[in-house]
Formats: sequence, C-alpha cells, structure tokens
Amino acid sequence: MARDPARVETFSDGIFAVVLTVMAVELLQYGPARVGGRELPEALVDAWPAYLAYVITFAIAGQVWLGHHNIWRYVVRVDQMLLVFNLLLLLFVAAIPFTADLLADNLRGSAAEQRLTAALYLGTVLGEAVCFNLIWWCARRHRLLHPDLDPQLTRAIARRLLLRPLLYLVAFAFVFVHPVLSLFLYLVLVVLYLIRGPGTLPSAATTAEDRSAA
Amino acid sequence: MARDPARVETFSDGIFAVVLTVMAVELLQYGPARVGGRELPEALVDAWPAYLAYVITFAIAGQVWLGHHNIWRYVVRVDQMLLVFNLLLLLFVAAIPFTADLLADNLRGSAAEQRLTAALYLGTVLGEAVCFNLIWWCARRHRLLHPDLDPQLTRAIARRLLLRPLLYLVAFAFVFVHPVLSLFLYLVLVVLYLIRGPGTLPSAATTAEDRSAA
Amino acid sequence: MARDPARVETFSDGIFAVVLTVMAVELLQYGPARVGGRELPEALVDAWPAYLAYVITFAIAGQVWLGHHNIWRYVVRVDQMLLVFNLLLLLFVAAIPFTADLLADNLRGSAAEQRLTAALYLGTVLGEAVCFNLIWWCARRHRLLHPDLDPQLTRAIARRLLLRPLLYLVAFAFVFVHPVLSLFLYLVLVVLYLIRGPGTLPSAATTAEDRSAA
Amino acid sequence: MARDPARVETFSDGIFAVVLTVMAVELLQYGPARVGGRELPEALVDAWPAYLAYVITFAIAGQVWLGHHNIWRYVVRVDQMLLVFNLLLLLFVAAIPFTADLLADNLRGSAAEQRLTAALYLGTVLGEAVCFNLIWWCARRHRLLHPDLDPQLTRAIARRLLLRPLLYLVAFAFVFVHPVLSLFLYLVLVVLYLIRGPGTLPSAATTAEDRSAA
Repeated sequence: MARDPARVETFSDGIFAVVLTVMAVELLQYGPARVGGRELPEALVDAWPAYLAYVITFAIAGQVWLGHHNIWRYVVRVDQMLLVFNLLLLLFVAAIPFTADLLADNLRGSAAEQRLTAALYLGTVLGEAVCFNLIWWCARRHRLLHPDLDPQLTRAIARRLLLRPLLYLVAFAFVFVHPVLSLFLYLVLVVLYLIRGPGTLPSAATTAEDRSAA
Repeated sequence: MARDPARVETFSDGIFAVVLTVMAVELLQYGPARVGGRELPEALVDAWPAYLAYVITFAIAGQVWLGHHNIWRYVVRVDQMLLVFNLLLLLFVAAIPFTADLLADNLRGSAAEQRLTAALYLGTVLGEAVCFNLIWWCARRHRLLHPDLDPQLTRAIARRLLLRPLLYLVAFAFVFVHPVLSLFLYLVLVVLYLIRGPGTLPSAATTAEDRSAA
Repeated sequence: MARDPARVETFSDGIFAVVLTVMAVELLQYGPARVGGRELPEALVDAWPAYLAYVITFAIAGQVWLGHHNIWRYVVRVDQMLLVFNLLLLLFVAAIPFTADLLADNLRGSAAEQRLTAALYLGTVLGEAVCFNLIWWCARRHRLLHPDLDPQLTRAIARRLLLRPLLYLVAFAFVFVHPVLSLFLYLVLVVLYLIRGPGTLPSAATTAEDRSAA
Repeated sequence: MARDPARVETFSDGIFAVVLTVMAVELLQYGPARVGGRELPEALVDAWPAYLAYVITFAIAGQVWLGHHNIWRYVVRVDQMLLVFNLLLLLFVAAIPFTADLLADNLRGSAAEQRLTAALYLGTVLGEAVCFNLIWWCARRHRLLHPDLDPQLTRAIARRLLLRPLLYLVAFAFVFVHPVLSLFLYLVLVVLYLIRGPGTLPSAATTAEDRSAA
C-alpha cells in the first residue's frame, strides 16, 4: 500500500501548468476589443511589459519545473514532512506570475520601484531555492530516495542545491547597487543552467552522468 | 477491466491545482499598471488581505490535499457513490478561494461582517470534513479498500476522521463569541495537523505507523 | 509502442478540472472589496445566480466526467478519429460554465430570455450526449475496446447512450412550453443518473453489473 | 532510476487543458449580468468574435495536442535539451488564446489590422511547427526514441514534420495578398490533417500504419 510519489508529481505539474498559462490569460486584456479608440499596433507595442512578464514567468517556472523533475525522479516514497516542504515550494511557484508582472511593469518605473520589485522577485526565487534544499535534505534524512542511488551522487546534488541560493543571494545583494544589474546576473545564472552550464549548477550535470550510465 | 482509482486522483489533483493558483491570479490585479496614481509600496502594502487570502487558501487546500492523498492511497476500486461523494468534496474545495477571499477582506470590516464571513468559511471547511467521512464510510461499506488493510487501522482512521468535524464544530461555535478567536482555534487545529500533532488528528499518525511497518 | 489511452484521460481530466473551478474564479468578483458601498450580506444574497451557476456547472460537468470515466475504462487503444471525437466532446464541456452562467442569470429575466438561455444550455448538453455516442460508435467500429468486453454489454451501453440524447431532446422540446419546466425535467434526468436510477440511463447499471462480476 | 516521459506528458497536458479552457473563461464576460441595458439576444450575437476565437483556439490547440501525442509516444527517455525544446513549444501553445482572440476580433477591423493579427497568429503556429522539428531532431540525435522504432518510419516522420512549417510559410506569405485568404489556406491545412488527409501531413498516416502493424 506504499504509494510512489507519482501523485505528488501530477499535483505539482497541475500547479506548474496553471502558473505557466496565467500570464497568457493576462495577455487577453490587451486584445483590441478592450483597447478603445487607440490604434492596434501602438496598443500592442505598448503592452510589451506584459509579453516580457509572460516570457520571464515561462523561463523561471520552466526552470523550476526542470529542477523539480530532476529531484523527484530519485524519490521513491513520501512522508508528511516532504509533502509539506513540496507544498511550500509550490506556494513560491504560484507567486511567480505576480512578481514577474510587477517586475516587468516597473522596468519603466523609478529606481526605488525597480529596487522594490526586483527584491520581491529575487526573494521569491530565493524561497524556491531554499525549498529545494529542504526537500532534498528531508528525502535523504528520512530515507525516501531510491535505495540504489549512489551516496556520492546524493551528496553532490546536495552541494549543488546549496550553491544555488548562495548564488541567488549574491545576485540579490546587487539590488542595492543597481536593480537591472541584479536581474541581469540572475538571468545569466538561469541561462547557464538551461544550456547545461559549467557544472556548478545543480542536477544538469548529474542528469547527464546518471543517464549515460543507465 | 476494473479501473484503479488513479484517474480519480488525477482529476481531483487538477482541481486542487487550479484552486491553489486561483488566488495567485487574483493577486495580478494589484500590479502597478492597474494601481493608477498611487505610490507602488503603499499600494502593495494595502493589498495585504489578498496575500493573506492567498496563504490561507494554500494552507487549507494543501491540507485537504494531504488528507485526500492519505485516504485515497488505501482505495483500490471505485463505484458510482464513492465518485459522487468525491465530487461533493471537490465542490467544497473549489469554494475555498471565494470564502478565503471574503474572510481576509473582512478582517478589517465590522464585527457582524467578520461573523458572517468566518461562518461561511468554517462552513466550507466543515463540509469538507463531512465529505471525508462519507468517502471513508462508503469505501469501507462497499469493500473498495485494499484487502490487506488492517481492519483496526480502518476503524482508527474512521474515528479520527469523525473527530475532525466535531473539533471544527467547536471552533465554529466560537464564532458567536468572537469571530477572530474562532478562526484562531481553527488555525491551531490546522497547524497541529501539518506538524503531525498529538495523534488526535486523522491520518498523520496512521501514515507514520503504516510506513514504518512497510 | 501502442499507447494506452491514459494520456487522453489525463488531458480530458485537466479540462474537466478547469471547467469545474472556472465558476469559483467567477465568484471572486463578489468579494466585499469590489462591492463598494453596499452592505455585505445583501451583496452576497444578491449574487445567488452566481452560486446557482456554480452548483449547476459542478453537477453537469461532474456527471459528464462520470460518463467519460465509465466509457473510457473500456477503451484500450486510440486512433485519430476517436481523439477528434473526444476533442469535440471537450469543446462542449468547456462551454458549460458560459451557458450555466447565462442560464442562472436569466432565471430572473423575461420569458423570452429564459427560453433562449435554456435552449443554449440544453443544446450544449445535447451536443455532449451526441459526442458520447460518436465516441462509443467509433471505439466499437475501429476495435479499440478491450477484447474481453462482452459484446452484449457493448450493445447495451450503445443503446443506453442513444437513449440519452433522445430524452434530452424531449426535455429540450418543453422549452417551447415553459423554459423552467424544461430545465426541471432535465435536472430530474441528471439526479436519476447520479443516484443510479431505474436502469434506463447509461453506464450506471452497466458499471454495477460489471463490477459485481469482477 | 531512468524516468519514462510520462511526467512530461502530464505536465504538457495540464498546459493544453488550461489553454483550451481559457477562452471559455473569456466568454463569461458576455454573460447578461455584464451586458447592461442591451437586449440579451443582440448582445450574444454581437459577441460572435469571442465564439470564433474559442473554436479556433480549440481546433488549433487540439491539433497541436494530437501532434504532441503522436510524437511523444515514441519517446522513451528524456534529457535536458529535449525538455527545453518542449518548454519552448509550450510557450507558443500558451500564446494561442491571445493571438486567436486578436485574430477573431480583427476580422471586422481594417485590412492593415487584419494583416497584423493574421501575421501574429501564423507566426505562433509557425513557431510551434519549428519546435516540433527541434523535438524530433533532438530525440533522434540523442537516441531517446524507442529502440524498436523502424528507422524508415523515424525518417518519414522527420520529413513530414519538416513539410509542415514550409506549408505554413506559404500560407503565411499570402498574408501580403489577402489576410483572410491566408487564414483560409491555413484552415484547409488543419482540416486536412484532422480528417487524416492525403498523406502529405505528418503523423496521421504514420499512426495508421504503425497501429495496423501493431
């Protein structure tokens, strides 16, 4: 009667799916029927922060989904604490559209507004990185991982997951220097991760290793 | 051709996922583009009932999901009546964002408004607790549970599930004393459940037992 | 490499889940923050058509989901035509919230408005019943059903599925007598189905038979 | 510990489900409660672009889902690059409701507006067709397909997938002649595909072959 974590993944994927499409729903308000007397091309061009928020949300939530996919494929059992940590992660995931929307809108705002929204945004991302660490820590400690998983690999993943919030904290600190620089640093980290970077980022390299071995 | 209840779980998880992200969609209306002439930090701070509703919805729907997860992993077959009870549960689940939104908004309203919204909210939660009992009763009576499930465990779960609406009724009664006290009592019950409380709450202890046995 | 129809069910369930929660999102606009200067209890009571639309949507979409669940558990393979018929069914399912909303709102409208919205509503439901017949016809003709399925049972399901749109057509015809009578007839049919009626309705009896046999 | 691509499908299906129902949510704003002083039948008739956008979105997203279903059933493993290409496809899928809404609304606009929205729409569809090619190319090159898959079939699918964006480009070019003609050409391609056309369109014929062989 032990349940494999498939249901946790289905449930989490439902939330990721809604988060990824929420911004597309938001885009609908820029349809011509609601534009009034203005010219359509001008109205569409003026809505650029909405498109940017859409792409940012997709990039970030997509990346978190990849990380979730990479970690959960090693989990073979679940307990109450792991589920609570996973819910906490999803709480931060569901907040991505809100913070991405604020962020994109304020790129044309004042420096103080840019700083506030960049801080909110990086705070959300930092919260996700912390939750990933809690999930992995709990899965290791409560022996919920696949028994054949190489302990060395387990530790390597833990180290890489730990590195991530530290890198985000550095990017976060640059908010006080310049908000756009801070976001730029963060986007560099995301792109490095998506194109399977120099190995300092979690799970990408791991996945490659264990799949070539399989 | 007997179908395992996996599809019921997928379907229910889809509803839970939408419910958990509905409030995040609501948050989007507080984005700066819609704020008008006001200062952004002030506008964001003023929107605190929306954040509160978001967190409350997440905590409650997340907890109901955990309970659903715990009960359904023992169910190996489904029949029409069980599916109808499950749909009834989901009807109450889908109403959580509405009542949580009313509740959070009215914490700064009059005492009469607070009483009304707290009553609506606890009524929804009570309805869920009753549906859980109906599901478990139906699953036992129609022999839809796993055949190897210990009858003693089955009865223990039934007792614990029965305790829950009774505790909620007590919390509900305090609405007539003071609405915020009533909600506070309710939140204590939720937190006790989430951190695997003193064993008086359903399924947490059960899960621990049967997993250490597995 | 033949794929079982699990993915079709997951996909359909996602749509059912969104449809069931759409009305809950609509309810949010009746939250007190948007009510303005009116009293909260009065505003909530005045919103009754929204609650009714919510419950109607849940009852109908829930019932269609039950029917979908009952039919698809006999399907073991899929082909292009079956998938297209299933998409057509989902097109009608996704329209339920719109027609239910129109319907509930117009119960306090003029007789002509009631007739129009009842006709739209029953038209949607009729479309669903027709799609169910197309799906079953296609699954039988293209040999996509479980090979051990009793041909007599297959024919019985086909007969019952055929009966349904006929009954709906009768209910539909009463729109020209009185719209509310027409809806009442329809609701009687739904309730009969949900409580496992006198055997004239599809799949309920079938399911019972084949489960007691299993 | 190798994970089959089931989770990728569940996740993608969640996004397809939301995309398919987004337009139904949009329809709700045409409910009579929001119509004001106008007559209901007139208001409903005037909302025809919304219905058209709903049906277009359903047809296109449904067709993309069919293509996704057809390709992914041959994939037995996933890697980072395949997941990123799949996310890119989903980025275009989630944009369908926005472009379909713009398109339907502008069918009564000026020729310049029609050209702009038709171009946006066909651009989205073209992006999807390119992503399908990237997914198939990556799956072949990284040996993620089922090992028993006939290499001849693999190449045939690749050729057909390549044909599709070319046909869309031709339809796209006609935007500069007449936007409605361009869309008409595109719709002919879609219908040909849905009714399992003359074999020049991807996966329909393939699916038939490999299923009769199975």
